Amino acid sequence: MNTSQEACCVIVDWGTTSFRAWLMARDGRVLAESRGREGMTHCATSGFEPVLRAHLAAMDAPVDLPILICGMAGARQGWVEAPYVDAPTRLADFAACAVGVPNGFADIRILPGIAQRDPLAPEVMRGEETQLLGLGDMAARQLVCMPGTHSKWVVLEDGWVRRFATFMTGELFSLFSKHSTLAFAMDGDIPFGADAPAFVKALDKAASDLSLSVSRLFCVRAAQLLNFETKSEGAAHLSGLLIGAEALAARQNFPDYADVTLVASGAIVGLYKAALQRVGLNVRHIDADDAVRRGLFSAAHSIWA
Amino acid sequence: MNTSQEACCVIVDWGTTSFRAWLMARDGRVLAESRGREGMTHCATSGFEPVLRAHLAAMDAPVDLPILICGMAGARQGWVEAPYVDAPTRLADFAACAVGVPNGFADIRILPGIAQRDPLAPEVMRGEETQLLGLGDMAARQLVCMPGTHSKWVVLEDGWVRRFATFMTGELFSLFSKHSTLAFAMDGDIPFGADAPAFVKALDKAASDLSLSVSRLFCVRAAQLLNFETKSEGAAHLSGLLIGAEALAARQNFPDYADVTLVASGAIVGLYKAALQRVGLNVRHIDADDAVRRGLFSAAHSIWA
Repeated sequence: MNTSQEACCVIVDWGTTSFRAWLMARDGRVLAESRGREGMTHCATSGFEPVLRAHLAAMDAPVDLPILICGMAGARQGWVEAPYVDAPTRLADFAACAVGVPNGFADIRILPGIAQRDPLAPEVMRGEETQLLGLGDMAARQLVCMPGTHSKWVVLEDGWVRRFATFMTGELFSLFSKHSTLAFAMDGDIPFGADAPAFVKALDKAASDLSLSVSRLFCVRAAQLLNFETKSEGAAHLSGLLIGAEALAARQNFPDYADVTLVASGAIVGLYKAALQRVGLNVRHIDADDAVRRGLFSAAHSIWA
Repeated sequence: MNTSQEACCVIVDWGTTSFRAWLMARDGRVLAESRGREGMTHCATSGFEPVLRAHLAAMDAPVDLPILICGMAGARQGWVEAPYVDAPTRLADFAACAVGVPNGFADIRILPGIAQRDPLAPEVMRGEETQLLGLGDMAARQLVCMPGTHSKWVVLEDGWVRRFATFMTGELFSLFSKHSTLAFAMDGDIPFGADAPAFVKALDKAASDLSLSVSRLFCVRAAQLLNFETKSEGAAHLSGLLIGAEALAARQNFPDYADVTLVASGAIVGLYKAALQRVGLNVRHIDADDAVRRGLFSAAHSIWA
């Protein structure tokens, strides 16, 4: 089988710290995949085109295929800026706003992000909108939670992005566990699950009172100084407080929803499921990797089909 | 006038990053003062005694005077550990728990910190308890706010520390403005006051809904990407959200109080006054430098008088 002959496009999710590309067949099958750590931050110095070309070569992709990119590659500090589309916006109209990248070898386009130009609640997203496009079957009105460095909570209505909010939960966890006093309360990168007692206890605290989870971050340290907890429990405790605070705050920000679509992959799926259920939300899970790939392919199809 | 002949003791506030010593006369007058950046972190490698001796020399203090120290010099990573006294505790009994420091030249003691051994709300303080001792005239029951890297909110009752809570507000501000995505939203160290529009607007947001101030930290960045704000306003915006969140959360944690004693010095006095008043608290201000000096002197008096 010669996969090159079947290939119709390359789709790329190009984030701040990661790169993922797929060589796609016309019928939506994945013919090849290539992943790397060459995110926007890396490429801002090394250049974007060489990184892309290397991954195309790794996938044995024909160089003249059209390429569709989403994510931070379209930021102002990225490859070519793809200006934000304003919310509310219809996801189906989205691909038409992709911006061409001048180059000598292929039709390369970058999807825009979405901006919420509300002076009282200014917000931006880049990449998550493409995951939304990949949700496929859309309920009339739904709340979507996309956890990550900057978790996004989005209200979708008949395929429109109505409004959204960012929670810096992932970045907070990283900042606290690396650079704060709480670093003394962490014991390396010990993995923990949603059933870790320190995580469950912290979720309970956070869910009972938002003001407690804001104030009690320091308790992660104090609990150890006073011998209530060991260092190996610090990360689970901190994670429970932060994810729990996000869940409760989002519940208060979007009080009309009893159900939430959780778009996530890997270990955080279980942690978020527990936190969302703890504040009374019914959770439907969609894999984030699948969603972004489906979203990119659907956008590519609407541009080049 | 020979100040050495009048001198009765040396008192020292030895924090994580700062050192302040005063040579005191029997009647409470300050005969000399010496300040430096040789906090616990610095001394953990350089040693504590040489730093203390250098400051004694700078004040021309007789080497055989008794010396009373409060703060992080008494932490486990400090000079000599002064174990925590458990809350609730009477401030007047406090000095008796000071721990002696073995050395060849003087009677040196370090005051303990206070621990709240509640598994649901574990807390520790070191140094702030001595400021409380310096408040002097104590209302029957009062709420005290001591802002800083780790702000402390304390319930005092007839001279007893009943309970307290820590807010990592100062550390959050430092972490966010130095190490996070929001660093891109800050323009160096431009000073701002409590009347800075970005600060006032952020206080309003934070005071209206705690969940908003948790979620809206990212708005500091988004507001600039969308041209609602300039970089020069970023620090004031972030500060308003964080101090505002602390004020509202503390108000919810200590709902029985309409008045608060603010123990603080310098630029944050105005910022905290505005935030506390914004959530409906009446503020009485006490200078923190004066409070810790009075507290140390009162403790020294009860030990050596």
